[in-house]
Amino acid sequence: MSERQDEFLNRLRANAQAVEAVLADLLSGDCRPEEIARPARLLAAMRHGVLNGGKRLRPFLVVETAALFPAAEPAAALRVGAALECIHCYSLVHDDLPAMDDDDLRRGQPTVHVAFDEAAAILAGDSLLTLAFDTIAAPETRLDDATKVALVLALSRAAGIGGMVGGQTLDLAAETDRPEEAGIVTLQAMKTGALIRFACEAGAILAGASDGDRLTLRRYGETVGLAFQIADDLLDLTADAATLGKATGKDAGRGKATLVARRGQAWAEDRLRALVAEAGTLLAPFGARAEILAETARFIANRRS
Amino acid sequence: MSERQDEFLNRLRANAQAVEAVLADLLSGDCRPEEIARPARLLAAMRHGVLNGGKRLRPFLVVETAALFPAAEPAAALRVGAALECIHCYSLVHDDLPAMDDDDLRRGQPTVHVAFDEAAAILAGDSLLTLAFDTIAAPETRLDDATKVALVLALSRAAGIGGMVGGQTLDLAAETDRPEEAGIVTLQAMKTGALIRFACEAGAILAGASDGDRLTLRRYGETVGLAFQIADDLLDLTADAATLGKATGKDAGRGKATLVARRGQAWAEDRLRALVAEAGTLLAPFGARAEILAETARFIANRRS
Repeated sequence: MSERQDEFLNRLRANAQAVEAVLADLLSGDCRPEEIARPARLLAAMRHGVLNGGKRLRPFLVVETAALFPAAEPAAALRVGAALECIHCYSLVHDDLPAMDDDDLRRGQPTVHVAFDEAAAILAGDSLLTLAFDTIAAPETRLDDATKVALVLALSRAAGIGGMVGGQTLDLAAETDRPEEAGIVTLQAMKTGALIRFACEAGAILAGASDGDRLTLRRYGETVGLAFQIADDLLDLTADAATLGKATGKDAGRGKATLVARRGQAWAEDRLRALVAEAGTLLAPFGARAEILAETARFIANRRS
Repeated sequence: MSERQDEFLNRLRANAQAVEAVLADLLSGDCRPEEIARPARLLAAMRHGVLNGGKRLRPFLVVETAALFPAAEPAAALRVGAALECIHCYSLVHDDLPAMDDDDLRRGQPTVHVAFDEAAAILAGDSLLTLAFDTIAAPETRLDDATKVALVLALSRAAGIGGMVGGQTLDLAAETDRPEEAGIVTLQAMKTGALIRFACEAGAILAGASDGDRLTLRRYGETVGLAFQIADDLLDLTADAATLGKATGKDAGRGKATLVARRGQAWAEDRLRALVAEAGTLLAPFGARAEILAETARFIANRRS
């Protein structure tokens, strides 16, 4: 392993620990001002869905894109990353429900509706989604009000009907609709792309970056979002469940033709190389500061779990 | 009917129409900036759950408490009210799911999971919840950034684990837990009280009211929230399904003893009178401007559907 990869993995791990600490604090039993009570079972279901040792890739993207700008406050970036992780985790809890993807296993553990019940999983997802906006707006997140409003707006657009939730709708429909390639691209840009793009743009928003830098990081986010999805589809095609900690071969089993399944493994590997190169080109103006983000693109393209 | 009641009902109806128009615009097929696409079936499910001719009582409370203050912009209050209604409607869509209260009928119409399917109902609820925060943060809502942040924070605390969602968790558990009266009071303050309290406090927040006035309206909100719940429990005990447009007698059928079921109809009617009087006392400092809000308390206490 190269020194650069080594440094990348160290930073990714250190960030995951820092995010985990913020999430554990957000999901402690202590009531916040205005809260009446935190019912123990709901809190336990939320914690089960969140505090599960994930890589925390989306918060990492927020923190590392923010770190390109000296003005950004790392603690604020970490809290915005934790808010985003609440959204990501809620979407997994709801997607795993019997009425949706019907998965029993997530990161090698029983999913929330299996460990608790369906009602608890629905409500845990709802309150995690709500908690994300709470976390951005809370006084503990030291950002000015205009920045918080911009983040709430960008996050809600990325997560709602025109982004992630809309994408999940299209994904469920794809089992019977069998969309053409353009349809698959839109579906994936919404279902997984929108949140990854937000992660990269959020760093620029909270740092008060110029419009040009914000646009560049947005494009970087779109690029790694595409790489993420292709790597995911490749894994679904080639990995085994033990490595992945969740069921594999599901897409084909449901008649969902991913781009990778249609075009083949060689195409996917070529495409991943091109996307990593594109990410590098986009990051070039930031110079050496952006090396970690270039390594992140490689990591996303090459991940095997 | 008195002239005052007449004026109240006219304003309630006019407000419901205005709220419906804002909601219809929020739920139009046009993509907002940053949105990739609005899948038609998800949008239809959201519209089914929202555009159903409700009384729009919560938005009315936002608009009328804001109207106590000359500085408040009515159009902004209306949009905040519409955001709140998105949260209220999402909670009904999720509460009606088979894994929760399992209701087929809502306002005389099939519930979202019956008219569409369970996955659509889960996702429609998720995107309505997200849309609420989008709507507050959007540039079309003409409020300063500090006010928007205060509204996002207060709404997320009222709607999340420490408020409405936590209350729904306790409510589901009550079927087996059989809580004592103190437990029932907490459950109801969370499940229905928190959002009604927010509605009344939101008017003060968006008007930039003094801390004293904000506290008074918060107490008014708690008072009408209690009245709302007692009237609701009384209706569950005494009304028939045709009048109500939904199933009745459900609480007893599920072994959930409401305060009204425990203490009886006469107690409930006494308590409602006392709460209406308390609302009037709280509103007295606002003088004649607050007559509509006093009438609202009477309406909430006396409603028969």
